[in-house]
Amino acid sequence: MAERNWEQFHSPENLAKSISIESAELLECFQWGADADSARVAEELADVLTYCILLADKLGVDPEQIVLDKLEVTREKYPADLARDRSTKYDRLQD
Amino acid sequence: MAERNWEQFHSPENLAKSISIESAELLECFQWGADADSARVAEELADVLTYCILLADKLGVDPEQIVLDKLEVTREKYPADLARDRSTKYDRLQD
Amino acid sequence: MAERNWEQFHSPENLAKSISIESAELLECFQWGADADSARVAEELADVLTYCILLADKLGVDPEQIVLDKLEVTREKYPADLARDRSTKYDRLQD
Amino acid sequence: MAERNWEQFHSPENLAKSISIESAELLECFQWGADADSARVAEELADVLTYCILLADKLGVDPEQIVLDKLEVTREKYPADLARDRSTKYDRLQD
Repeated sequence: MAERNWEQFHSPENLAKSISIESAELLECFQWGADADSARVAEELADVLTYCILLADKLGVDPEQIVLDKLEVTREKYPADLARDRSTKYDRLQD
Repeated sequence: MAERNWEQFHSPENLAKSISIESAELLECFQWGADADSARVAEELADVLTYCILLADKLGVDPEQIVLDKLEVTREKYPADLARDRSTKYDRLQD
Repeated sequence: MAERNWEQFHSPENLAKSISIESAELLECFQWGADADSARVAEELADVLTYCILLADKLGVDPEQIVLDKLEVTREKYPADLARDRSTKYDRLQD
Repeated sequence: MAERNWEQFHSPENLAKSISIESAELLECFQWGADADSARVAEELADVLTYCILLADKLGVDPEQIVLDKLEVTREKYPADLARDRSTKYDRLQD
């Protein structure tokens, strides 16, 4: 994108707005029901991801790493996640 | 996520809704202005990305590949993108 | 809201962000399926409407009037809307 | 809308999705900054409001009434709202 000098508009705030806007275009594939054209869905998803990557870059974080970090936090908060596979100890935990 | 049997709820439609919902939580960091806590922004971004990856998985597409594919389409539509770096021929094209 | 001096934050842009954010909270009622608690849905809808009214106020337009105006535009664009009730002439028009 | 038999698609869930989608089109007016064409903003706001009214209708609630009800709840939760105008007693309450 550097070639177009678009970067000046890519403040974290504008990128966050852009992610919401593109997410809604993705949602539009499903506006009136569950059936949607997979190719169009993939294309709209790509647009969401593109802005996510640009925002991660702005923040100086690695997209894959923050996903893994968040997953770790979730697992710690809900040990049942792991427990179910590893032991029967927490089997009765309510999800 | 398989451990929690959440996958049954992960229809493409529900994941598209989830991406919109999480994108709005990301946007909430910037609701009243451009200043936002970077750590919180990264965490909300991770949530958006997590659902994006789940949807890509459902669609059987590779997240990185669809981003690259889409970028290629954009470049073909706007050859000025590449032109600026490679030649002076299209230098005066208006962005 | 004047009592809290919140108005200074109510720029059209911030209100537009707020409408998106509240809309996503409304959507969250339906995140995993069509069933939702009606009382909660009505409450989230009220939040969306509240920000819509604040934005209309900022723009100096009447919320009801812009809805009627837009409906008029839609009817002119799709005369079949009215035609169906008034005549059988356009009955077979595809929607 | 009855004329077009669109109503069958107007489940609360689909209307909630539609409100999010139209909100994002409204947000798009401000994607790269605070300046936006007022006429276009009003038109996009009208689209959001139209789906809000359809959803209120589906729920059997009055749009104006739920806004007033919610405002009442907010005022009860934050008595400082009213206090500021009526007395100095709560002046130091943190917002």
